[in-house]
Amino acid sequence: MATINQNYLKLPGSYLFSEIARRVSAYAQANPDKKLIKLGIGDVTRPLAPAVTQAMHKAVDEMATGEGFHGYGPEQGYEFLRQAIAQHDYAARGVDIAPDEIFVSDGAKSDCGNIGDIFGVDNVVAVCDPVYPVYVDTNAMAGRAGDYDGESQHWSKLVYMPCTAENGFSPAIPQEKVDLIYLCFPNNPTGAVASREQLERWVAYANANDAVILYDSAYEAFITQPDIPHTIFEIPGAKTCAIEFRSFSKTAGFTGTRCAYTVVPKELVRGGASLNSLWNRRQCTKFNGVPYVVQRGAEAVYSPEGQAQVKETIAYYQRNAQVIREGLTRAGLTVSGGVNAAYIWVKTPEGMGSWEFFDLLLEQANVVTTPGAGFGPSGEGYIRVTAFGDQQATQEAVARIVSVLG
Amino acid sequence: MATINQNYLKLPGSYLFSEIARRVSAYAQANPDKKLIKLGIGDVTRPLAPAVTQAMHKAVDEMATGEGFHGYGPEQGYEFLRQAIAQHDYAARGVDIAPDEIFVSDGAKSDCGNIGDIFGVDNVVAVCDPVYPVYVDTNAMAGRAGDYDGESQHWSKLVYMPCTAENGFSPAIPQEKVDLIYLCFPNNPTGAVASREQLERWVAYANANDAVILYDSAYEAFITQPDIPHTIFEIPGAKTCAIEFRSFSKTAGFTGTRCAYTVVPKELVRGGASLNSLWNRRQCTKFNGVPYVVQRGAEAVYSPEGQAQVKETIAYYQRNAQVIREGLTRAGLTVSGGVNAAYIWVKTPEGMGSWEFFDLLLEQANVVTTPGAGFGPSGEGYIRVTAFGDQQATQEAVARIVSVLG
Repeated sequence: MATINQNYLKLPGSYLFSEIARRVSAYAQANPDKKLIKLGIGDVTRPLAPAVTQAMHKAVDEMATGEGFHGYGPEQGYEFLRQAIAQHDYAARGVDIAPDEIFVSDGAKSDCGNIGDIFGVDNVVAVCDPVYPVYVDTNAMAGRAGDYDGESQHWSKLVYMPCTAENGFSPAIPQEKVDLIYLCFPNNPTGAVASREQLERWVAYANANDAVILYDSAYEAFITQPDIPHTIFEIPGAKTCAIEFRSFSKTAGFTGTRCAYTVVPKELVRGGASLNSLWNRRQCTKFNGVPYVVQRGAEAVYSPEGQAQVKETIAYYQRNAQVIREGLTRAGLTVSGGVNAAYIWVKTPEGMGSWEFFDLLLEQANVVTTPGAGFGPSGEGYIRVTAFGDQQATQEAVARIVSVLG
Repeated sequence: MATINQNYLKLPGSYLFSEIARRVSAYAQANPDKKLIKLGIGDVTRPLAPAVTQAMHKAVDEMATGEGFHGYGPEQGYEFLRQAIAQHDYAARGVDIAPDEIFVSDGAKSDCGNIGDIFGVDNVVAVCDPVYPVYVDTNAMAGRAGDYDGESQHWSKLVYMPCTAENGFSPAIPQEKVDLIYLCFPNNPTGAVASREQLERWVAYANANDAVILYDSAYEAFITQPDIPHTIFEIPGAKTCAIEFRSFSKTAGFTGTRCAYTVVPKELVRGGASLNSLWNRRQCTKFNGVPYVVQRGAEAVYSPEGQAQVKETIAYYQRNAQVIREGLTRAGLTVSGGVNAAYIWVKTPEGMGSWEFFDLLLEQANVVTTPGAGFGPSGEGYIRVTAFGDQQATQEAVARIVSVLG
């Protein structure tokens, strides 16, 4: 008799976005005349850069010819893209990462989810609270999370690191010993960043305890302050204790085009094994590379035109973030994030729960946000607002919120 | 201290294609004047169909505009593609598969590798010998394979089902009870197919034992004989015991474009859980969908022009297969496969090992093949020849082999 992975049965429903959709749909049906503005989901809205689409057209043309056709590519990504990444995302910041430490993939979500494959089930996993649910759910699937307690909304074996206003949404190093540490800066959902000193402490902890930091920097393109590290490998010693996840999704609008990469340094060794070799083996066995056309598109992000164009789009979203920050502050709300991030983390008015404030904004301002409680217990009392929307719609949404709360 | 997945350390090196590359490269360096013809690796060579590249161009143009831009798509694939698949690959053959039983993905290799996520580690796994290595290696990574014995080239806990000339390269149902059964028809590497009666026996076994058949039909487009099932779901009862993997790689030349799909029927329940729901949860958590541009390309495969064009390409490869079959038979070799498949499975001359014959063909005919022993012990005494090459080169390769052996 075939048995299933029992850990799947322990997973609570993926409640957050379906519950949002349910409430939005119920409200829209009851109020067909209202024009809703959605600042909830973290998806981009601006078109691909012309440099990217030109490169993709060219690659499609190649695929239509016998000479230009590309069949199976390297599972790890084409050398042209790995070279461009090593040069522009690392060497340009003074960080020495070799192309064969870079694994091109179809998404940071896939890689964050699949990276658990190469680790033992016995590792103690630390996650932030609030947290991007993929880190938690994939460890639950693997049996590293223990059992889920609906009341505390915590898994029995995970170590939660609260990110609160008190610690500036940058978690303290846990008291207990942990083995795998998921960090995401700029953070989803809070929009907080980690300073060089904070990352140095994490790297020191990980090296001292033979832990591994799983560093998600999918939002690094939104960093504006010059002293904030864009990659954990800017921190000396990180190559012996960290894996980094990066993505073209938010940098270049690739959420529907699918290209990302993961950096596993060759110096990173645990249990006598090179994690670079283990991840290479995992990818060669369970993955067959990213479409040639997409890799050519990603390469074009690094061309001078591509760089200028994606920076313009990032600036567009950053202006939205500023509009949101300033408007909601004017409305009397306490906001954080949004300076080095496209997420603004907004404290609910005194005594109001996440979902209650979500409903108020939906019903009175006709603006859709994301209740912070959906990202974990420490997200209670917050909502997440995203800057990825249309400029005019964002301004309109903020004006409505100001008028409702003002 | 972070621990690694110890099962990875048990994996023998992925020896086959690197060893082939090593021998080919050594020969080429020593004999720079010789023109090698490669009929080894199972990669296609013909360009994408014009209908496909037109659709991809159109989709790239959409992505360049605010109105046509597509961000995150459904993890399961766009409805337009799932509908087209349900209609053309199933309803057209009298098989009722709903779009929400179809999960579009980046590759059959990914899905065959990842499907193990939803199953318990305690399942007894049966694989064919010779076998596509991904089935074995991914189960070894998950801890289902036990330990590897270099001498027998077998894993201690896997059940091997020999595919030999005696059973027509269609394995017998194992004596011992097995839980997960990997079947691949048309087969890689032997090119054998399963008859309706044979598949009926597998389905009866699986239903009687609550086993699950993992059915890889990535090569179904090459079936020429009208009575051979293209999908396991042509067999009554298969929906309660089978998962099917399909791909655009060989059907439409998508090896470098990356699109495939997996069918998990809603009727398939094990341990009280719907495998469709489990796989949906897996994909939603660890995958973010296939690029919009690629899905539009895949959809175009089903247009009338797309169908005509991909059938022409398949016919091109089928003519190669016939040339290889007839030529090698003329050269006195015993061949099988190549009728409903692009792989031809060739018995080595009396008493000659796989690698020995590989070397002979490399050195005397300057033709690169794949030693059957690389796919498992029962592949010893065979080589695999692929029909995916250029027509002229294939004819030339066959002529050379005939002249060497003749």
